[in-house]
Amino acid sequence: MDEKKPLSDIEIAQSSKLDPILEIAEKVSLTEDDMELYGKFKAKISYEKMRELEQQKNGKVILVTSINPTPAGEGKSTVTVGLGDALSRLGKKTMIALREPSLGPTMGIKGGATGGGYAQVLPMEDINLHFTGDLHAITTANNALAALLDNHMHQGNELRIDQRRIVWKRAVDLNDRALREVVVGLGGPGQGIPREDGFDITVASEIMAVLCLATDLDDLKRRLSSMVIAYDFDRKPVTVRDLGGEGALALLLKDALKPNLVQTIEHTPAIIHGGPFANIAHGCNSVMATKTAAKLADFVVTEAGFGADLGAEKFLHIKSRSAGVEPSAVVIVATIRALKMHGGVPKDELKHENITGLKKGLENLKKHTETISEFGLPFVVAINRFAADSESEIQVLQEWCASNSIPVSLTEVWAKGGSGGIDLAEKVLHEMETNERKFQYLYDMTAPLDEKIRTIVQKVYGGKDVEFSVKALKQLEEFAENGWGDLPVCMAKTQYSLSDDPAKLGRPTDFTIHVRELKPKIGAGFIVALTGEMMTMPGLPKKPAAYQMNVDEQGRALGLF
Amino acid sequence: MDEKKPLSDIEIAQSSKLDPILEIAEKVSLTEDDMELYGKFKAKISYEKMRELEQQKNGKVILVTSINPTPAGEGKSTVTVGLGDALSRLGKKTMIALREPSLGPTMGIKGGATGGGYAQVLPMEDINLHFTGDLHAITTANNALAALLDNHMHQGNELRIDQRRIVWKRAVDLNDRALREVVVGLGGPGQGIPREDGFDITVASEIMAVLCLATDLDDLKRRLSSMVIAYDFDRKPVTVRDLGGEGALALLLKDALKPNLVQTIEHTPAIIHGGPFANIAHGCNSVMATKTAAKLADFVVTEAGFGADLGAEKFLHIKSRSAGVEPSAVVIVATIRALKMHGGVPKDELKHENITGLKKGLENLKKHTETISEFGLPFVVAINRFAADSESEIQVLQEWCASNSIPVSLTEVWAKGGSGGIDLAEKVLHEMETNERKFQYLYDMTAPLDEKIRTIVQKVYGGKDVEFSVKALKQLEEFAENGWGDLPVCMAKTQYSLSDDPAKLGRPTDFTIHVRELKPKIGAGFIVALTGEMMTMPGLPKKPAAYQMNVDEQGRALGLF
Repeated sequence: MDEKKPLSDIEIAQSSKLDPILEIAEKVSLTEDDMELYGKFKAKISYEKMRELEQQKNGKVILVTSINPTPAGEGKSTVTVGLGDALSRLGKKTMIALREPSLGPTMGIKGGATGGGYAQVLPMEDINLHFTGDLHAITTANNALAALLDNHMHQGNELRIDQRRIVWKRAVDLNDRALREVVVGLGGPGQGIPREDGFDITVASEIMAVLCLATDLDDLKRRLSSMVIAYDFDRKPVTVRDLGGEGALALLLKDALKPNLVQTIEHTPAIIHGGPFANIAHGCNSVMATKTAAKLADFVVTEAGFGADLGAEKFLHIKSRSAGVEPSAVVIVATIRALKMHGGVPKDELKHENITGLKKGLENLKKHTETISEFGLPFVVAINRFAADSESEIQVLQEWCASNSIPVSLTEVWAKGGSGGIDLAEKVLHEMETNERKFQYLYDMTAPLDEKIRTIVQKVYGGKDVEFSVKALKQLEEFAENGWGDLPVCMAKTQYSLSDDPAKLGRPTDFTIHVRELKPKIGAGFIVALTGEMMTMPGLPKKPAAYQMNVDEQGRALGLF
Repeated sequence: MDEKKPLSDIEIAQSSKLDPILEIAEKVSLTEDDMELYGKFKAKISYEKMRELEQQKNGKVILVTSINPTPAGEGKSTVTVGLGDALSRLGKKTMIALREPSLGPTMGIKGGATGGGYAQVLPMEDINLHFTGDLHAITTANNALAALLDNHMHQGNELRIDQRRIVWKRAVDLNDRALREVVVGLGGPGQGIPREDGFDITVASEIMAVLCLATDLDDLKRRLSSMVIAYDFDRKPVTVRDLGGEGALALLLKDALKPNLVQTIEHTPAIIHGGPFANIAHGCNSVMATKTAAKLADFVVTEAGFGADLGAEKFLHIKSRSAGVEPSAVVIVATIRALKMHGGVPKDELKHENITGLKKGLENLKKHTETISEFGLPFVVAINRFAADSESEIQVLQEWCASNSIPVSLTEVWAKGGSGGIDLAEKVLHEMETNERKFQYLYDMTAPLDEKIRTIVQKVYGGKDVEFSVKALKQLEEFAENGWGDLPVCMAKTQYSLSDDPAKLGRPTDFTIHVRELKPKIGAGFIVALTGEMMTMPGLPKKPAAYQMNVDEQGRALGLF
């Protein structure tokens, strides 16, 4: 995040000394018997231990979210890790809960997703590569289901599945645009039924969302059974329950469902588990991760995808509801750079001081603080400091916060690790202690789907209204008939704007959100409302990051960012 | 294997008590520092340790092969495990080296591949499911390469790759016939170049063969670089070296290349690592597995795929040459049932005594004993006993062996574990001590490809001649021009017959082998000679095994066979 990096993230990570995972585990009273070790620095927590923990009371959950992201970067994971380390330094029994990265972006353009600088989770190479195999298990379960489905049709199609209306897609954990739209089953009668198909990146698979929301193996199986995979010739939904195979899918996922324990550079215990898309899914780490962390520690710092309009809203309406774990406080991450972009400053001018641009961009931050207040949660704004931020800019932001009674903290965790987040940690603790908490959901589960969507648009996005396409209107009726009206809504919207137009930065008003289509994710337990085209399979750039990667003869990763 | 099973394989496996893997490791002087633990019962051996072991002398390798397989089953893995356990019982420092199973057949028709009865490797559920993630790493590397290739074409195609002549296919570790022939890149200019493509099952990927033949990470990288992935518009081969990305592929495979340590039911240390197809690849566990086992133990029992005509020939000509590990003795597994099938007895009559059929079928066994003699290796025939085998039948087989001076042992390892293989172990030890070994390859590496193929056909299959298609004749010239003439040949032939006609059981003579096409596997380091259609992506049966699988709430596997 810092512009004058003395060392790259992987250099810092590889020069850090890890403690044996058993020592990390001890800090939260986990013993060797409570875990399965994956090498010396990774472990999965056993089902037995998690059942035992159910009797414990929950620690306090701190949710880290941000303003609408910009290409300038916010550093939400970095702040999450740094805040956790800061709380540990203050003597608080703390755990961090993060999502696990996908190989697609790692090999494509983005590099890893394990924080940055001196606020990272380790071993970063493992976490960014195969880790404990969770994503491979999900890919395999996803594709096993597709194979069973195509085989069912090939072997006589007893369920009368309409091959034009199959909604279950295949998956790879890679960026591969050539697989977005394919035709399968070619080559003659021995090779299956020819049909249109496509591949999503694994993190967009409904199985990823199911795994992240399941509370135990039985719940996992129940959710897998409920997934809609196709429609029959009468246009009735066909589920995994109809096809069979949920036992095999659950068997393939039996280890993937267990949360993974690792550590930060400063040896704070961290759980890295699950990583669903934050547009077509809910974008949070798993319920089992957050719940387990909350049982083991007094404070859990966790993160939701994208900005507060998407990630925090879904964390609160979907994950909290499902998990029974509500946050006690929220951290809203902002950077001077990103605020300036929201204020209209072009990307290549962000290095220069621009007070006018900054002041104009503050309206984006303002909206997110209002939204979190609407949910009844205390919050602190974390300014994630970059080297190019001027003192005057930082002062302007701090003064603006003061005049709006917004608690704010200048955070320097990239450069300083936990010690750069002590002030933030103290302010978060203060807010949790003093602010009278009155958490509330913004919509009732019994409200119709369109009303839920309208509530989100008006209360979270600050928009005027919702316009449903003809298709979406028809689906609203069908979904109600199918008994899906009582589910929460998962908005698939651009992360760059509060509106559905990525070009509208800052705080647009009077806008209308256009819902093009609904998608039933009955296993995950939500209805996706699509606004605009959502990419569920990224492509590779002209020069993929993969070309820089290597491994030395000792097996050390090189060129992994 | 036994027909009156009191317990199923998984029941026996789950009722067996495993020793901690550290205790198993101690038996071959491996310490915790030499390994990375994957849970309590699996570990990978470190590169550091393997380099250290290079100075040690090799133990003796015993290769287990069989007559031509039949649907009646031979139980080669079971005999391999049982022989290893028997040698351990005799006080010999022994390791077993086996292939790792593929999820496709496990979820399709075949069930697991970890031996049977009381001669199994454990933990069988893990080994049959994701194990330590090796196959997932191979799938990912395979598909990452495909994505880089399609992306290269999409981004301008600097290498002038002819999209009609791409030979690199995608892979999944599943049985999925609908993916055999597909069209990718559909949907418009943003979605890549439309072209025909297909998926192989992961074990058929050249990367699997590369991983199994590589001697260290550098050799892995060199082999990955040499893989031919396409031809350009001048019909010149395009390799990974031309495209780039071998570093990323090696990085993805850095843990998969390390051999996996597990144990048998009787706590003999076993390495399970790599599992290439035995037709279009060489069908043996990895060089690093066998070499490491040979450094750690005095005796290594290992297995090659299919019958001696395919598996043993390739073990000797491809793997031994590449690894520098030659077997000291061979075990040829035969069953009364399978010999009767070779003698023309129909499958549903195998339960009944049939001396005439048995005697006729012995000619298949005879040929394989001659082949192993041709290689100059001592051998013992192992009769893998089934409950329905009659005493008279067993006596006929034993007498026939005696009259032909063929060492033979009645083996009951399925029912009795290692104690059922003591006689076999003693006879193998006796042969190794007394038989004067004069191992020889049957062809020189410098011989032209067609001559190598002819030698295999005549000396190993007992055929008369080889007929090359027009295409294959042209390829012989092209391959010589490309400098590939000095590579060994990997025959892709039906496993059911010594000929290329699966219906010709027993010992056919005077037949001609038809080579339809050659395939360059330059990374693996061999040229595949295709005789007939070889299936590289199996399909699922009408009732896939997956529908019987499940997991209980403690995470225990159910219905895994």
